[in-house]
Amino acid sequence: MTRNRQFTLARRPHGMPVPEDFALIETPVPEPGPGGTVVRNVYVSLDPAIRGWLDDKPSYMPPVEIGAPVRASTIGRISASNDPAYAVGDWVMGLNGIEDYSLGGAGGFQMKIDPTLVPSVTNYMSIMGGAGLTAYFGLLRVGKPEAGQTVLVSGAAGSVGSLAGQIAKIHGCRAIGIAGGAEKGRRLIEAYGYDAAIDYRGKSVEQLAAEIASAAPDGVDVVFENVGGDVLDAALLNLNHGARVALCGMISEYNSAAGPVGARNLFQLIVKSASMSGFIATDFMAEIGQAYADLGRWLAEGRLVSHEHIDEGIENAFPAFLRLFEGTNQGKMILKIGED
Amino acid sequence: MTRNRQFTLARRPHGMPVPEDFALIETPVPEPGPGGTVVRNVYVSLDPAIRGWLDDKPSYMPPVEIGAPVRASTIGRISASNDPAYAVGDWVMGLNGIEDYSLGGAGGFQMKIDPTLVPSVTNYMSIMGGAGLTAYFGLLRVGKPEAGQTVLVSGAAGSVGSLAGQIAKIHGCRAIGIAGGAEKGRRLIEAYGYDAAIDYRGKSVEQLAAEIASAAPDGVDVVFENVGGDVLDAALLNLNHGARVALCGMISEYNSAAGPVGARNLFQLIVKSASMSGFIATDFMAEIGQAYADLGRWLAEGRLVSHEHIDEGIENAFPAFLRLFEGTNQGKMILKIGED
Repeated sequence: MTRNRQFTLARRPHGMPVPEDFALIETPVPEPGPGGTVVRNVYVSLDPAIRGWLDDKPSYMPPVEIGAPVRASTIGRISASNDPAYAVGDWVMGLNGIEDYSLGGAGGFQMKIDPTLVPSVTNYMSIMGGAGLTAYFGLLRVGKPEAGQTVLVSGAAGSVGSLAGQIAKIHGCRAIGIAGGAEKGRRLIEAYGYDAAIDYRGKSVEQLAAEIASAAPDGVDVVFENVGGDVLDAALLNLNHGARVALCGMISEYNSAAGPVGARNLFQLIVKSASMSGFIATDFMAEIGQAYADLGRWLAEGRLVSHEHIDEGIENAFPAFLRLFEGTNQGKMILKIGED
Repeated sequence: MTRNRQFTLARRPHGMPVPEDFALIETPVPEPGPGGTVVRNVYVSLDPAIRGWLDDKPSYMPPVEIGAPVRASTIGRISASNDPAYAVGDWVMGLNGIEDYSLGGAGGFQMKIDPTLVPSVTNYMSIMGGAGLTAYFGLLRVGKPEAGQTVLVSGAAGSVGSLAGQIAKIHGCRAIGIAGGAEKGRRLIEAYGYDAAIDYRGKSVEQLAAEIASAAPDGVDVVFENVGGDVLDAALLNLNHGARVALCGMISEYNSAAGPVGARNLFQLIVKSASMSGFIATDFMAEIGQAYADLGRWLAEGRLVSHEHIDEGIENAFPAFLRLFEGTNQGKMILKIGED
């Protein structure tokens, strides 16, 4: 291949993204600079956070520029290298773009990965990747659950939520998951070991709060929040004294053209002397060794499972990305754009 | 006096309280039970928190019952005692009601106070009372400011906010206060030592956020939040990485018949790995000795000042209470209902 297909941002989405917000273009394959590398991307991690990078708003990363490839974590193989640390063919993961070829490390991060250590190299995007680290640090370092406490996870069937629930169970907690639809509810119980599953669809804040209360008769000690809006408001009505809300994401808010719904039951933080803390996994990079050791052991012991939903072809980047907001992905959303 | 005038809750307010929500009744003066006391209340502390106790909603205290005196902290003197620890005439403070006479300790809390230790016995309702302890613990234990950091206080001219700002200055911080109107703005600077004052009135979230940014060019490390709604949303747009929001109150939300506005910029907690923690002063009772020692020393050294707005007469309880929500009180709102 001599052309680099790139899925670029054509204009900033207003509310839910539409196909016209993006373009599929072809550019020359980049050449590595002195000491640099080029990666042939094979798998692209499609994450809700990408939606935030498309807006021109202050965030923890600069917005994707108009005309630039949409930023995403990828797994690929070194295709050209001027860096003795990387040989052609090495597997790497990094923060790159939705494109066939990326300049290695241009997104600020590249590391080698060993596919022989995991059942599938794509596990480096789920259990052994950003999803696993986010669930691990968010639950254990931000949520700080103790054995016997109750952990409520929203977006509980998602890539991060499903792992947060499983790690809560490993830590001896009662885990309650909120997700959309009966199929996901079954998956929460049967695949991820949640003690109870709640379907949020078509329910008011009051109804959801009552269902949470029924599933958590002793109240909720830790909320691992991925959804925001009504789901967060219902969770806030069930906090125990001193509860911790680990605010990981608010996917229900990202595409609202009218602006976010917000949290209207914040007063419960005062009533319960509770806290809500935002975080991203990179806050805890000093502990990444311990996290990978734990996640790798639990994976090897069969105590962590992850479902991966792999669509194929860079030309399907838009519908694959949209699945995250439609809730039609069944597990970690991955786009395969090259050969293994 | 042989009759006990009581300011009671006649019905639950819907939105902003109206006079018909309350009644002024007369009942017999209570007699102390075995080992009990009766207090002649002299000063009543009127606090925004009282509004929350009038609703039939889950809170950190049970709602005031219909027909019962409105719950409030009071300062008074023992008028009858079967408890050897209390002599008739002793000054006490406690959680009682807006009424001439209360059964001492019936609200769960009564302690003796020494009026000779302070310039005015009413200081036990401001600097040396709930307001001082709330400002002290909320700023220092929840907000955790470091010298040189920037502290933003909303409701900055109020009983708690004015003390939070002064304690921030004592700790070597830059203090920015938000309050309503030019007169309060002057008081923030001249009386309480704030470095900058912002008038929130008539401004959008975006305008307020821009004024905060201008007053805090290095961002905000600690928010001491008393107001909620638009004011909180504007503060959230100015957080530094790792900032702490000490959520003390949300007075702008308490009387909304349509329900709270909520916080719509919560995503900034994720962007900045920031936290928001609710609290009440009683969470920190183990540290009350240290707190009183610090507050008493700063008061003696003239480093803490408190303005007190004292209205007189139990028949004026309603308009005096309403000042808190109109913002027409100039300092800690107190109602004097008896002779010193």
